[in-house]
Amino acid sequence: MTVNTNPMPDVQGSVDKRRIAIDRVGVKAVRHPLSLIDRSGAAQSTVAVVGMNVGLPHDKKGTHMSRFLQVLRDEGREVSVASIEALSRRMVDTLEADSGRLELAFPFFVDKAAPVSGERGLIDYDVELVAEVQSGVATQTLKVVVPVTTLCPCSKEISEYGAHNQRGHITVTVESAGAVWIEEIIDLVEDKASCEVYGVLKRPDEKFVTERAYENPKFVEDVVRDVASALKSDARLSRWIVEVENFESIHNHSAYAYIEGSNSTA
Amino acid sequence: MTVNTNPMPDVQGSVDKRRIAIDRVGVKAVRHPLSLIDRSGAAQSTVAVVGMNVGLPHDKKGTHMSRFLQVLRDEGREVSVASIEALSRRMVDTLEADSGRLELAFPFFVDKAAPVSGERGLIDYDVELVAEVQSGVATQTLKVVVPVTTLCPCSKEISEYGAHNQRGHITVTVESAGAVWIEEIIDLVEDKASCEVYGVLKRPDEKFVTERAYENPKFVEDVVRDVASALKSDARLSRWIVEVENFESIHNHSAYAYIEGSNSTA
Amino acid sequence: MTVNTNPMPDVQGSVDKRRIAIDRVGVKAVRHPLSLIDRSGAAQSTVAVVGMNVGLPHDKKGTHMSRFLQVLRDEGREVSVASIEALSRRMVDTLEADSGRLELAFPFFVDKAAPVSGERGLIDYDVELVAEVQSGVATQTLKVVVPVTTLCPCSKEISEYGAHNQRGHITVTVESAGAVWIEEIIDLVEDKASCEVYGVLKRPDEKFVTERAYENPKFVEDVVRDVASALKSDARLSRWIVEVENFESIHNHSAYAYIEGSNSTA
Amino acid sequence: MTVNTNPMPDVQGSVDKRRIAIDRVGVKAVRHPLSLIDRSGAAQSTVAVVGMNVGLPHDKKGTHMSRFLQVLRDEGREVSVASIEALSRRMVDTLEADSGRLELAFPFFVDKAAPVSGERGLIDYDVELVAEVQSGVATQTLKVVVPVTTLCPCSKEISEYGAHNQRGHITVTVESAGAVWIEEIIDLVEDKASCEVYGVLKRPDEKFVTERAYENPKFVEDVVRDVASALKSDARLSRWIVEVENFESIHNHSAYAYIEGSNSTA
Repeated sequence: MTVNTNPMPDVQGSVDKRRIAIDRVGVKAVRHPLSLIDRSGAAQSTVAVVGMNVGLPHDKKGTHMSRFLQVLRDEGREVSVASIEALSRRMVDTLEADSGRLELAFPFFVDKAAPVSGERGLIDYDVELVAEVQSGVATQTLKVVVPVTTLCPCSKEISEYGAHNQRGHITVTVESAGAVWIEEIIDLVEDKASCEVYGVLKRPDEKFVTERAYENPKFVEDVVRDVASALKSDARLSRWIVEVENFESIHNHSAYAYIEGSNSTA
Repeated sequence: MTVNTNPMPDVQGSVDKRRIAIDRVGVKAVRHPLSLIDRSGAAQSTVAVVGMNVGLPHDKKGTHMSRFLQVLRDEGREVSVASIEALSRRMVDTLEADSGRLELAFPFFVDKAAPVSGERGLIDYDVELVAEVQSGVATQTLKVVVPVTTLCPCSKEISEYGAHNQRGHITVTVESAGAVWIEEIIDLVEDKASCEVYGVLKRPDEKFVTERAYENPKFVEDVVRDVASALKSDARLSRWIVEVENFESIHNHSAYAYIEGSNSTA
Repeated sequence: MTVNTNPMPDVQGSVDKRRIAIDRVGVKAVRHPLSLIDRSGAAQSTVAVVGMNVGLPHDKKGTHMSRFLQVLRDEGREVSVASIEALSRRMVDTLEADSGRLELAFPFFVDKAAPVSGERGLIDYDVELVAEVQSGVATQTLKVVVPVTTLCPCSKEISEYGAHNQRGHITVTVESAGAVWIEEIIDLVEDKASCEVYGVLKRPDEKFVTERAYENPKFVEDVVRDVASALKSDARLSRWIVEVENFESIHNHSAYAYIEGSNSTA
Repeated sequence: MTVNTNPMPDVQGSVDKRRIAIDRVGVKAVRHPLSLIDRSGAAQSTVAVVGMNVGLPHDKKGTHMSRFLQVLRDEGREVSVASIEALSRRMVDTLEADSGRLELAFPFFVDKAAPVSGERGLIDYDVELVAEVQSGVATQTLKVVVPVTTLCPCSKEISEYGAHNQRGHITVTVESAGAVWIEEIIDLVEDKASCEVYGVLKRPDEKFVTERAYENPKFVEDVVRDVASALKSDARLSRWIVEVENFESIHNHSAYAYIEGSNSTA
């Protein structure tokens, strides 16, 4: 089949008269395999759900949707928190725009050793990475969901024995001018829970994590405060949010806490 | 606007030559508000996701999609496990078919009293109700997801204090010629876990459920066997499945068990 | 069983020394049946997923989680966009807090007539309703997802016949001091697409919607601008967002557009 | 930290007296990065959600959950439809069981050329791959979801111009003794729709797919029959199911069709 060379009308390229600029226009829900370079320089393979969009001036009727996919195809196979800004700038240039936003959501894996046996196993963390360019200035947002164990201080205190515990999610979102590594967030928050979770646990490990959680009871209020306290001291973060959600073992709903802050240096 | 009265070609009604009958054709993912009549005769309001389909003979090109929605609209506002068969037969008749299948998935609510304070609160259970008609014979399938607390016997045994516990789901699916009430399934399975879950718990209740779970440790293997044992003795059930999934508090994955059986009276 | 009357330690009520206030603490992912009063004063039954939280001063260790459920149980069975503020204030009072946030997400149904036959059928819209109280001042946020048909102007222009079309979502989020009715948003946006969608369509209706969409091609860029234009003129809205997502029939991803604005009267 | 060498009680290994064997017990919802070997021998990286379970005799109290994760970690990084049986046998051996089931769900990517411009772009297909071993006999099940364009024959016939079309899913599930390649299923079904979908389409491509779909109108009934017809002739398939779901552009629900068959050679 030969390429059709007839000139075709460029509907998107025509003039718009409504005098309304569009903040973001592009593609969404694109699934895309990714080689993610981590803090150590190693590559891990994952699959991202991608959103890409740019600002459109008031007098342009439409953007060029296929170019987003071409940028992603040609330059988006290998990314890191350090390279995402360059990719977003490349997208803005290709679309001949002044602003743009690149969003990647993907699972990130860490190979952890069990606390006693040392058995290795993967833990998966949901990550969202956003790079935004406005008039040449770039901002990055990183969101990491860290699964943990939480054990209820009230339940422990009032009961003869035992204490209800459950899986919880600590979600940290940080905004910065430059790169913050996913592993930095994980390291910062993982020890703020009653206990970490693991992929492979043998019996001596199970004894360890059970006792560790019991010795270290925490409400969502405790966890959210301890993580907030750690985030407050990182001068790179212009804005941060920490959320804790416990999938309560004694209810069919969650307990939830949220703190936001900004580490402005003004 | 007047109704268009021109005769229009009936493409669906034309003859098909491929000689392939279709087992199921109809509509899916229809959201529909429902008044559900429960075992006591009371009505509870809920919202269902509905699937409706019929068998199509090999020589008919297509079914009449709009009629499914008309049946649902006209006769599907109030249903119960006792009336679903009649509704499925009505659908089959309206579509001039020999077989059909009606599927309703919805949350069901039970008003429970907390174990010590007596405080009342709702618990929600995911339910799927299917009525199938084949050559005049009807079969019903009921699936109920019961959220519970489970506490690990191994963790309790090997640890100095505490024991990991978590929310779990006990899912029971039963096939029968006639009606089985949702509440029968809930009653049958809820006490097979380490403890039930509740909507509202005050401190004396929290002490109660914490100690109750600790005194009553169960693996997924224990729960699935105890529920299977109870299902085996119900002669109405031609086929049943029980599944248990624990959202482990010490891992980021689930423990899972499954038993199926048939109480044939042959 | 008698109520345990022993005094129990109140762990949540103890003093916290970390000097970190919590912006939001409460419950999340509570499923709750709701009687929703619509613009006409009629009640429709639906099921909401509810979040409830309050601010917690720096010196208090924890909130009282069970009280949220009690407020919802006792006063949250019947709500409307006009009564949600009162319910959020009641929650803040019950929790002895200075700020709070009540979130309800639920499907909303409208009984629509088909454009030619007049056949009636329900259409479902996803709605999120948030009431927030800060130092006595209340703000409401309403988000409505409107499913529509969109037909591509470029595809129509360059093709000999036909044009690709698909289901799309127009999502409008508005912030205001007082009530905005869900139906107002639906009325405002539904005619900005290539065509509305319907529950029941007979053949004359199908001819009508097919031709209507073909006569009325619109990019996501066109739809987002036309809705933005309408939102700009509503003085009640302190802030608004409109998003359009087309589930492209020729791709396995979406086209997307977004405009935000504020109708400040300063 | 040194490994705890105290003998610990083996609760799982104790004897069970209930006389109820468990059909399946193991782990579920494990996220796992995978190198998938495709038909050409090339490796593509993806992320799977994994379920692993084995049968448990009536007299054993519990299985050894951590061993599943160890098998997956040690031998489950690189798999193909040709090697999955061996992996499931390895799991059954490691768990000292007689039967077992290994389930992998993951997105699979194909690099396709646009029909006129030849521009390359990825399309993602949801795949589920199950290997089951019972008394030494292995069976494989492969499920592939193929996104396509469908255009309504009725809408085309009755309308002056245009025809409603939408994205649809053709889902094929095949059971066989040996390997069936994912690409075989995609090749078999993709041309049975009104048109294929693509990642990158330039304007000449958009003209092509628009006209191609208009020239090739198909109901869900047509697509399901055409795919069934092709599956009937594959002697490797002991059992197959084909489902078609159209996300109707004129409704907020789906049209759906389903045919199942068995190509027994008895």
